[in-house]
Amino acid sequence: MGDDRQVSGFSTCAVIGIGLIGASFALAAKKAGVVQRVVGVARRESTRALAEQVGAADETTPDPALAVQDADLVYLAVPVGAMADVMKAIADCLVPGALVTDAGSVKQGICRAAEELLPPHVHFVGGHPMAGSHQSGPAAARPDLFEGHVYFLVPTHLGGNHVLQRMCAVVQAIGSVPHIVNAAVHDRLLAATSHLPHLAASALMVAVCRLTGSPEQIARYSGAGLRDTTRIAQSSPQLWSDIFLSNGSEIARAARLACQILDELTAAIEARDAERLQTLLQEAHAARTALEGLRREVPGS
Amino acid sequence: MGDDRQVSGFSTCAVIGIGLIGASFALAAKKAGVVQRVVGVARRESTRALAEQVGAADETTPDPALAVQDADLVYLAVPVGAMADVMKAIADCLVPGALVTDAGSVKQGICRAAEELLPPHVHFVGGHPMAGSHQSGPAAARPDLFEGHVYFLVPTHLGGNHVLQRMCAVVQAIGSVPHIVNAAVHDRLLAATSHLPHLAASALMVAVCRLTGSPEQIARYSGAGLRDTTRIAQSSPQLWSDIFLSNGSEIARAARLACQILDELTAAIEARDAERLQTLLQEAHAARTALEGLRREVPGS
Repeated sequence: MGDDRQVSGFSTCAVIGIGLIGASFALAAKKAGVVQRVVGVARRESTRALAEQVGAADETTPDPALAVQDADLVYLAVPVGAMADVMKAIADCLVPGALVTDAGSVKQGICRAAEELLPPHVHFVGGHPMAGSHQSGPAAARPDLFEGHVYFLVPTHLGGNHVLQRMCAVVQAIGSVPHIVNAAVHDRLLAATSHLPHLAASALMVAVCRLTGSPEQIARYSGAGLRDTTRIAQSSPQLWSDIFLSNGSEIARAARLACQILDELTAAIEARDAERLQTLLQEAHAARTALEGLRREVPGS
Repeated sequence: MGDDRQVSGFSTCAVIGIGLIGASFALAAKKAGVVQRVVGVARRESTRALAEQVGAADETTPDPALAVQDADLVYLAVPVGAMADVMKAIADCLVPGALVTDAGSVKQGICRAAEELLPPHVHFVGGHPMAGSHQSGPAAARPDLFEGHVYFLVPTHLGGNHVLQRMCAVVQAIGSVPHIVNAAVHDRLLAATSHLPHLAASALMVAVCRLTGSPEQIARYSGAGLRDTTRIAQSSPQLWSDIFLSNGSEIARAARLACQILDELTAAIEARDAERLQTLLQEAHAARTALEGLRREVPGS
């Protein structure tokens, strides 16, 4: 890590929910020298054992309240729907001045919960690393998971500019590109660029399965197109149900539009309206081509 | 190529539409010794020059009728919507006993057109290689494009079992796995496993673009999920408009179901019905997981 990534370190980081994201953060933060010691929290003993085994946690406990009592950095990486409960569980045990952050894909609800549930003597910055995998658990963790990816940071009432700057330094130290953003803007954009694709991939997979009758038939009669378009339908149903419900109104709005466009395309096919059909396909083609080109230019995307 | 792939060769193969698929077939068939000489047909001079340059065609012409006059094998690889016109153009010039086949993604219309338009003294077997790329043109052609992939063959009235067996041998010689199938069954299955994913990817890309406002915003705020789910939206609008219109009723039926399932998911989100939401996501997850597992087992998928 270069000198520009230096950040005043934390002595103890409590990673609550030490799965893929939590364990990857722990590995990255330790490697970067941002964190000296990690206490990992997971309900399951097997997860805790794995987290220690891969070197993500120096010690582990099933109890969030116990984990935070020495922590100057608290990293919440539980499913979005469990964030508020964890905040309630740790609120009374947090060290004054501790920096609390999260890795949830939806920011409005979590930031609001933090402002309501955490004590005024701690700091909170919402976070969302644009990295992940359809794999899960500490066994899949990698210290370079965040390397080169955008990492959203959302300011809250719990902490001024210096807190935000400190969190920026942490994010840069693990190789990510910090993007400071308002929670509502984040949630609206992510509904379109991340949550809708997940919902659409699941809807498509269910439709193909019902139309085809069996996974054997699908495997036999499909190619890379179906595999790519449905890959993220293999993500955790529990995790994504949580995300969908946490950003419900934005996702519903996005899904209604997608359905309307699919309806338009279908109507054009049924009416044999080649011009209307090609206009829509051309719009998709142009956007996807632009996206492919930009991806090479935009740093960290 | 092993001895089991030996097939009595053809002296001249006319490849009409020598783009990605046509040129790849030419390269593969020449490499396998199935074909001695290839005459490539393309409207554009630049495409013809490229086809000769990459070694896919020994000579080229813009005129399909001219190309087939010495050909004992005719490979039609023009867009689905242009097949009937090409058949009309070559019908009077085909050599008696010539084997004609095509590479279109939709089979009912093409096989019906062949039975109506081609003379009774030639043979026709419908074909559909389950291989491709979002790239196009002879420059992207590869002799191994079909290697290990399913290659559908559809019997027609123009040719008995020995013709079908000969075509099977050609397909095996280029490394593909022949699957003999009825045209209607093929079109219904492919509507679900290939055409619907393309339509859904385009609908999703248009929706995300309209919701987000600009490709720059999309590039900045999206990750691998969106890229994968929309990759095939970059395919040729002209080519896919053709395919959608050629398999209209099956695709419309598939698209209506996909829309209905997306609506169900959206309604569950709006009603905050976690159980209903997770049941659907679980169905998608199970199907996608089974597909991933089967892909490793089913040969040529």
